[in-house]
Amino acid sequence: MMYAAGDVRIEDIPDPTLHEPTDALVRVLNACICGSDLWPYASMQASDGPRPMGHEFLGVVEEVGAAVSGLHTGDLVVAPFIWADNTCDFCAEGLQTSCRHGGNWGRDGVDGGQGEAVRVPQAQGTLVKVPATADRALLASLLSLSDVFPTGHHCAKKAGVNPRTTVTVIGDGAVGLCAVLAARRLGAERIILMGRHTVRTDLGRDFGATDVVAERGEAGVERVRELTGSDGTNTVLECVGLLNAVETAFAVVRDGGVISRVGAPQYTAIPMDFTVFRRNITLTGGVAPARAYIEELLPDILDGTLEPGRVFDRTVGLDGVPDGYRAMANREALKVLVRL
Amino acid sequence: MMYAAGDVRIEDIPDPTLHEPTDALVRVLNACICGSDLWPYASMQASDGPRPMGHEFLGVVEEVGAAVSGLHTGDLVVAPFIWADNTCDFCAEGLQTSCRHGGNWGRDGVDGGQGEAVRVPQAQGTLVKVPATADRALLASLLSLSDVFPTGHHCAKKAGVNPRTTVTVIGDGAVGLCAVLAARRLGAERIILMGRHTVRTDLGRDFGATDVVAERGEAGVERVRELTGSDGTNTVLECVGLLNAVETAFAVVRDGGVISRVGAPQYTAIPMDFTVFRRNITLTGGVAPARAYIEELLPDILDGTLEPGRVFDRTVGLDGVPDGYRAMANREALKVLVRL
Repeated sequence: MMYAAGDVRIEDIPDPTLHEPTDALVRVLNACICGSDLWPYASMQASDGPRPMGHEFLGVVEEVGAAVSGLHTGDLVVAPFIWADNTCDFCAEGLQTSCRHGGNWGRDGVDGGQGEAVRVPQAQGTLVKVPATADRALLASLLSLSDVFPTGHHCAKKAGVNPRTTVTVIGDGAVGLCAVLAARRLGAERIILMGRHTVRTDLGRDFGATDVVAERGEAGVERVRELTGSDGTNTVLECVGLLNAVETAFAVVRDGGVISRVGAPQYTAIPMDFTVFRRNITLTGGVAPARAYIEELLPDILDGTLEPGRVFDRTVGLDGVPDGYRAMANREALKVLVRL
Repeated sequence: MMYAAGDVRIEDIPDPTLHEPTDALVRVLNACICGSDLWPYASMQASDGPRPMGHEFLGVVEEVGAAVSGLHTGDLVVAPFIWADNTCDFCAEGLQTSCRHGGNWGRDGVDGGQGEAVRVPQAQGTLVKVPATADRALLASLLSLSDVFPTGHHCAKKAGVNPRTTVTVIGDGAVGLCAVLAARRLGAERIILMGRHTVRTDLGRDFGATDVVAERGEAGVERVRELTGSDGTNTVLECVGLLNAVETAFAVVRDGGVISRVGAPQYTAIPMDFTVFRRNITLTGGVAPARAYIEELLPDILDGTLEPGRVFDRTVGLDGVPDGYRAMANREALKVLVRL
């Protein structure tokens, strides 16, 4: 439970029970802390809390409602970071984040994912069954399907990344690194990663980055332009969410190119004057409909081709969650896995 | 020549001559006044003038430079509103507005199109030969290929309009009406035109608009939402260039949809907070690479299927150009054709 900025507490609450016939109960095995959890951790007012936290988890089905088919007690399931019926028109279009009967974890009486058990609304549409595994590394990669890997994938997909597009990824957080992995998976051969934390950018190179630009601001822009014959790249994957990252994106995108943003915006307006218009820059992206991508990304994880779970560089137990927030906020940890 | 806001004058200047072997001289038959010419007409400082005006024209080739092939004296040609070599990598991608050797009419010693004769740089790449015709109505539609029709087409194309997309067009100016025509041509079956000038929206209905929303602001947004089961349309074609038009666009676009803008931006930033992000809205568009579309759009004009030239509702001679600006600025005329 988050009580206010910097104040995360572990509390004993009763186990959830089924409310609707479309619910399921899931006993959580692995959860994690998201970069987006750090925004309230930095600024949440006490009057907005306490709030159950967490929207990424993987667990075992414990009980299913009468209207849920295809899921059974004992199934290993992964939950996308927004729950959805997966049948409405938006879901059918692959936009489960706009589901007509969906919602957010930790709101309106729904549990957060950073806990021992979760009541899952619209369980049949929300949960994706994955093969049972005892391999902890594989579990971490499967957990990444909740949010961070599909978010990187959504970013690359909306940008239209393909074997003919050059790519700049802005941000060496877990999402940025997953965007590198996704861009490589979609065939991009030139992937420039902008980030200055060597441990992270080294993982970025493992994931497929061909160039790393550690400089920031103007110097970083200059460096990307040098690397691209002064033109910039066809696509820019903005994985930070701060205005200066967006400004960098406009500065390094090629004329006619696409900026795709998945960093939760910490700004309210984007500078877009005649220059951007003259250059025919497209701005796309948004909250990733993780549910739309899980089945597509799953096989590459199961056969070991991709290991997005490598973004987890620290593991804590439930009691360690407050420390996990602190470590991520201080940039001591890239992404923290919670093992229950 | 524009001297300052509201001050357009006809001047005698020497006929242009060839400067470069890649030049051609064109004797202008038809030119026109663009909605974008009205921005300097409203606000240009005297210190920025005098400036040769006009970037849309159709005429007869009078002389070609030694390096120009495929064009001959006497050919009827249409000029796109930005000149370009049509061979560089950007041109090859259909982005002639970013041509590495291109530029604007009326700048850097290049003539404007609102005059009797024009030196055309990069003539082989810039000019498109069209069949000779004595039909004035056809000439008007051919002239529309310079800018206004390809601009509407670019707007619809970048939005991804197809038979399955619903469309809202914001603005009943000549570009908005051409966007309706282009959207219909691309197969859209539901086209909502937002505009309040009945004469114009009637032409919009002829061009393919299925619904007209005359209300503005909040009431206009409400009306579009009523017409679309409160969801808005998949695509919004923003053909005005004012911030309130962009704000309306965000209010009437469906989640996951695309806003395409071709109205020259009279703003420097666009409000884009978490709501837009949550809804996965894409913002695209920009200056239309008219040259990329002329060959594609030409056949529908030549066979009479499409009549974009109907946006011209007033014709003046060269002496009438200052009056033409006045008439368009006062909204007495939709778009003024200049017959030389």
